[in-house]
Amino acid sequence: MKLATRNNGERDGLLVVVSRNLQHIADADDIVGTLQQAIENWDSVSPELNERYQALNDNRWPAVQPFDARKLLAPLPRAWQWLDGSAFLRHGERMQQAFNLPPIEGAERTPLMYQGSGDDFLAPHDDIPWRNAADGLDFEGEFAVLVDDVPQGCGAQQALAHIRLILQLNDISLRAFAPREMKTGFGFIQAKPSSSFAPVAVTPDELGDAWRAGRVHLPLNIERNGVRVGRQEGGEMYFHFGELIAHAAMTRRLRSGTLVGSGTVAGADTAAGASCIAEMRALEMLAHGEPRTPFLQPGEWVRMEACTRQGLPLFGAIEQQVVKSDKFEE
Amino acid sequence: MKLATRNNGERDGLLVVVSRNLQHIADADDIVGTLQQAIENWDSVSPELNERYQALNDNRWPAVQPFDARKLLAPLPRAWQWLDGSAFLRHGERMQQAFNLPPIEGAERTPLMYQGSGDDFLAPHDDIPWRNAADGLDFEGEFAVLVDDVPQGCGAQQALAHIRLILQLNDISLRAFAPREMKTGFGFIQAKPSSSFAPVAVTPDELGDAWRAGRVHLPLNIERNGVRVGRQEGGEMYFHFGELIAHAAMTRRLRSGTLVGSGTVAGADTAAGASCIAEMRALEMLAHGEPRTPFLQPGEWVRMEACTRQGLPLFGAIEQQVVKSDKFEE
Repeated sequence: MKLATRNNGERDGLLVVVSRNLQHIADADDIVGTLQQAIENWDSVSPELNERYQALNDNRWPAVQPFDARKLLAPLPRAWQWLDGSAFLRHGERMQQAFNLPPIEGAERTPLMYQGSGDDFLAPHDDIPWRNAADGLDFEGEFAVLVDDVPQGCGAQQALAHIRLILQLNDISLRAFAPREMKTGFGFIQAKPSSSFAPVAVTPDELGDAWRAGRVHLPLNIERNGVRVGRQEGGEMYFHFGELIAHAAMTRRLRSGTLVGSGTVAGADTAAGASCIAEMRALEMLAHGEPRTPFLQPGEWVRMEACTRQGLPLFGAIEQQVVKSDKFEE
Repeated sequence: MKLATRNNGERDGLLVVVSRNLQHIADADDIVGTLQQAIENWDSVSPELNERYQALNDNRWPAVQPFDARKLLAPLPRAWQWLDGSAFLRHGERMQQAFNLPPIEGAERTPLMYQGSGDDFLAPHDDIPWRNAADGLDFEGEFAVLVDDVPQGCGAQQALAHIRLILQLNDISLRAFAPREMKTGFGFIQAKPSSSFAPVAVTPDELGDAWRAGRVHLPLNIERNGVRVGRQEGGEMYFHFGELIAHAAMTRRLRSGTLVGSGTVAGADTAAGASCIAEMRALEMLAHGEPRTPFLQPGEWVRMEACTRQGLPLFGAIEQQVVKSDKFEE
């Protein structure tokens, strides 16, 4: 099943069902108003949502509208909890090189994870706000999962059963703030403005055997100004999503609508580029003694999309322009 | 005005108005359903809420119920964003002593703040779950403010105008996890299970001149098993709430319902005790070469309340028992 959220001017939007081929949508808010409400009542609402999804795919649903990602919000426009892992260890290694940080002890035993801000996710075509060049504006291509209620102490395998939807995101980052915020030990506040999401959230079965062992075994295509800069494999995730969820749930339950991110998709093959600029710069430093790829500037475009192995659409694309943000006035 | 949230079995509860003397409540969900909705529509709903509040105080409201904190949830049972500062610098200094951590560079210029989990706040009388003695279960007495939409780049003084409500909380902490999580630089996940809140959220005017310069100038009384262990002054906050909000809003806007915490209330007078056990242990280490106060054990009680200077109730009390949490079963 594929779900999205239509922009009706409200903060949580309205739930819609999306056809498998991403050609059409059908309103679903008569079944349940929002994606958050759907995840809270998944067992009772998902059968009817799935019926509508099948009818839409079979051209049996009368009230069809064309799929237009510009009329959609992030599938979950705001999250009661947004936990972002860093489960691709190659990303961490390269960031340590880039920032000249010491290796993190036990990084292969305990997942790295930060609590992010989920109050204001960006839509797939929203502008990426740019303040100034000194911020070091960067993108990070990731996958994420949306869970229902997870009990405290839930194990990694049991945690997989709580995954209801899979999403694709751009974890927008301001690199200049990260070293200081990491040094405090308190994690990211200014370094992590709002993330943007691909328009469609999909149930794990939509991935077929590309969803196995708690990982999305698909490449994530990243383009900058129309040029591919990354095609790293989601299957190279070291900790799987069940392990990330179990890590977060070790000392407390997680409530429905908690979103758990993979961290920047990064594999062994550096010829496949990178899912963020900071990694490219780290590789350049190693190769040439200096970073060469600049951070994002106003007017640039970022596009991210993971399709099926057959090249069919899955989550839709994130496609955002970097735009100088308005000065604060009040 | 004083507001609270009645437990109706739903995740967000129902909004109620509380009389100034905390003797009565009146339903308010006919005006607006939940506190989150109220904060999103503050200008349109607060006049009518305030009318009901005045009618309740003047014994003019017919449908009155007795105030019973056991029937209430946290005023905001879950938050789209929970940002906890560490704005009492004495707390940070003592924690560094306790954990043998290096001082944080620039701590007097830039507020310390972590992004916390807001998906599952505990009610004022909920049990505090205890897993095992090794966790180092602790309480932290704090104040917090609830803001409406804050634009990106908002200054500290302008930020004060976005504060709609003031709350009092217990930021429950598991000390054993903090050093490792701080060392990663990613902040707290396992070290910070869900916080609990005093039953009543109050508008700043309810504090009279105890609300000035963006700080709550009141002592926070902390009792452990009926014995007072802390009475530190909220006015000793080094960064005020406007500065905390501005810090968080520097690189992104904050959406309505963002909750910003003060960090553990801690002042210069060590004779006034402490608002968390870790600080008591740090002081004991300095005085006696070893910590003497044990962390929380099952069966213990924690009580926190900040009253007016005249001893009148304000937020109501947090009163929680530590209870061994059930083993995970599924």
